[in-house]
Amino acid sequence: MDRDKILLTPGPLTTTLRTKLAMLRDWGSWDSDFNDVTARVRRSLLRIIHGEDTHVVVPLQGSGTFSVEAAVATLVPRDGHVLVLDNGAYCKRAAKLTTLMGRTCTVMGFDEASQVSPAALADKLAADKTITHVVLIHCETGAGVWNPLQEVADVCAQHGKGLIVDAMSSFAALPIDARETRFDALIAASGKCLEGVPGMGFVFIRKAVLDACAGRSQSLAMDLHDQYVYMEKTGQWRFTPPTHVVVALAEAIAQFEAEGGQPARLARYTQNYQTLIHGMSRLGFIPFLDPAIQAPIIVTFNAPGDARYDFKTFYASARQRGFILYPGKLTQVETFRVGCIGAIGPNEMEQAVAAVALALEDMGIASGEPAI
Amino acid sequence: MDRDKILLTPGPLTTTLRTKLAMLRDWGSWDSDFNDVTARVRRSLLRIIHGEDTHVVVPLQGSGTFSVEAAVATLVPRDGHVLVLDNGAYCKRAAKLTTLMGRTCTVMGFDEASQVSPAALADKLAADKTITHVVLIHCETGAGVWNPLQEVADVCAQHGKGLIVDAMSSFAALPIDARETRFDALIAASGKCLEGVPGMGFVFIRKAVLDACAGRSQSLAMDLHDQYVYMEKTGQWRFTPPTHVVVALAEAIAQFEAEGGQPARLARYTQNYQTLIHGMSRLGFIPFLDPAIQAPIIVTFNAPGDARYDFKTFYASARQRGFILYPGKLTQVETFRVGCIGAIGPNEMEQAVAAVALALEDMGIASGEPAI
Repeated sequence: MDRDKILLTPGPLTTTLRTKLAMLRDWGSWDSDFNDVTARVRRSLLRIIHGEDTHVVVPLQGSGTFSVEAAVATLVPRDGHVLVLDNGAYCKRAAKLTTLMGRTCTVMGFDEASQVSPAALADKLAADKTITHVVLIHCETGAGVWNPLQEVADVCAQHGKGLIVDAMSSFAALPIDARETRFDALIAASGKCLEGVPGMGFVFIRKAVLDACAGRSQSLAMDLHDQYVYMEKTGQWRFTPPTHVVVALAEAIAQFEAEGGQPARLARYTQNYQTLIHGMSRLGFIPFLDPAIQAPIIVTFNAPGDARYDFKTFYASARQRGFILYPGKLTQVETFRVGCIGAIGPNEMEQAVAAVALALEDMGIASGEPAI
Repeated sequence: MDRDKILLTPGPLTTTLRTKLAMLRDWGSWDSDFNDVTARVRRSLLRIIHGEDTHVVVPLQGSGTFSVEAAVATLVPRDGHVLVLDNGAYCKRAAKLTTLMGRTCTVMGFDEASQVSPAALADKLAADKTITHVVLIHCETGAGVWNPLQEVADVCAQHGKGLIVDAMSSFAALPIDARETRFDALIAASGKCLEGVPGMGFVFIRKAVLDACAGRSQSLAMDLHDQYVYMEKTGQWRFTPPTHVVVALAEAIAQFEAEGGQPARLARYTQNYQTLIHGMSRLGFIPFLDPAIQAPIIVTFNAPGDARYDFKTFYASARQRGFILYPGKLTQVETFRVGCIGAIGPNEMEQAVAAVALALEDMGIASGEPAI
C-alpha cells in the first residue's frame, strides 16, 4: 500500500494518525462513556468561540450542508424571509436549500472575486423590512474569500435581523468571538479546520432565540431544537450518532487545544499559505484573489495560460507524486484550488509546490512561464 | 484501557478490528480511489437484494433515520397519502417525520407484540383509495417483531400502491429478494447487520418510479433523486461523504461476502439468538414476543418480577462485566433488550448470559426465579 496522499482539499483533509486511531474502538451510543465524549466535545466547541454564556451547540449527523440546512430550517420561521449574501458556490447552495424548504429567499449577488459588502447589506435591510434573517458564508470556499463577519454582524444587529453564519471552512482557524460578534447561528463541521474526519456538523445557536425555534423545522432529522432538547435531557443524540466520527473529533480537539487553539492553528495555516504562495508564484502562478481578502484556508489559482494545460492531466500528475489537488469552482475562469488546512505544515506545502512544478514539466509547460 | 465492551445493542454494534482498521487512512472525496470504493459498495449492496435489474441504490450521509426521511420525501408526491403500519416505536417515528414534512399520513395501529396484518392492510387499501404509499418496518426493533414483508408487498402490488420498507435492522440478515418482493424503496444503514460503523444510510429505489421522484423533496440534503443523478454523472457524493465510514463499510461488506453473504449471516445470528434464549430461559427470563414472530435480531425480555430489580443497576452490573445491554422501548411493560447482531458469536452470547446471571446476584435476585 502506498504512503497516504496529502489532501490539499478543503475537507476531507489530512488528519493525524492519533485522530484516526481513536476510531479503533466501538462505542455504545446509549452508554455513559459515549455520552461523556459528546458532552466534552460540546463544551470544547463552545469554548472555541467563547460562547459559553450566550450560545448552545447542537451536533448533527451528516455532512456540513446538512447542518446548514438544519440551521435555516430551525432558525427561520415558516413565514420568514432570508437574504443570502452571495459571492460564491456555497452561498448559492444555501439559497437553494432555503428556497426548496419553502422559506422566502432573496439573493444579493456580489462578484466572486470580492467580499460581500456590509454597506450594501445595510441599504438592503433599510429598503426591505420583510427580511428576517441574513445568511453569510464566512470563508467562501468557492474562491477562498474571507468575508467581513464582524461588519456584517454589526449591520444585522443594528437592524435587529438574525444572522446565520456558515463558518464551515473558517471555524477553529479564523477568529470568531461570540462575546463581540452577534449571530443567531453559526455552523461548522468535524472534517474541516478542527482536523477531524467528516461525518457530522454542529450548529451554535444563540440562547436568546432558542426557545422560539421549537416546531419550525419541517424535517424531523434536521430539527436542531428537538435534537438540543433531547440531548440536554438524556445526554444522548436523538438518532444513532456516527460514534467513530465523534470520538475522532474529540481526539482532534484535544490536539487542537494542545497546539494552542485557534491562534496557533491560524498561525500554522498562515505559514502554509505563505509557503504555498511563495512557491507557486516562483512557478508563475497567479492567485485569483486580491491577497487583502484571501483567507489562508484555500487558494484559487488561475490555470496556466498554455494550450497544453489540462486539469485532469495536471491533477493526475500531482496525484501520482502524492498530492491531491482540488478543481476550481468558478463559473467564468479556469482555475484550480489548493487547500492550506489539515494536519500538514510548511514542509508538505513545499513538497506540493515541487510536485506541481514536475506536473507542469510533464505537460511540457515551463515553470516560471507567466500564467494568465 | 479496558478490553472493548461487547455491544448487545441494535447498532452501533461490535465490528471487527479489520473493519475499523480500514479507517486509518484519509481519502479525498473527489478522488477516483474513493469513487471506486463508493461504486464497489453500491454494486455489492444491490447484489445483496438481487436488485441489479430492478433497483438503484443511493447512499446518504447521516443516521438511518435520515435515510428513512429522505425516502419518504423523495418517493411520496407532495399530495401523496402515506399509510404507516404501526407496531412499534420506529413506525411511530416514520409517521412523525411524514406528517412533519407535510405529507398526509394515516397510522394503522397494531399491537406491539404482534405482526402487522396484511389482511387488514388489504381492507384498508380497498376502503381508502387516496392512499398512495405504505410504510412497513421489516424488523421493528422496538420489540423485535419480524413483520411479513412478502405478504405486505403482495397486497401493495395488488392494489398498485408504493411500498417503502424500513429494513434498517433486517437488511443483510433476513432474506430480501427484489426479484420476488415488489417495493418502491427499501432503507438500511451502515452500522447494522452489515457490521460497518454508523454514519450513513442507503436507499434502494425501484427504477420504474425513479424518474417521477425528481423535485419532490423539499429538503436539498435529503433529495435522493438529486443525489442519485449527481452520483451517476460524477461518481461522487453531492456533499462531503463520511469517507472513513464508507471505507469501513466496504471492508465490512468484503467480510460479509467472505462469510457467505446473507444466509451465513442469518445462520450466525440465529445461533446467537438461540444461545441467548436458551441461557436466559434457564435464568428464568421470559421473552416478550411469541417466538413465531421474533426476528433473530434483537430480543425483548420482560424485566424480572422482583421489587429489587432496577434497570440502571442491572445495566451497570452487566456493563462492568463487559456487556452493553439495551433498554426496553415499550410503553406498557417494563422490559430490556438484547441484540444478537454484530461481529459476535455464540461464545459472546454465553458470556453475556453469565454476566446477566451475576448481575441478578448483585441485585439479590436468585437466578431461575420466574419473571413476570
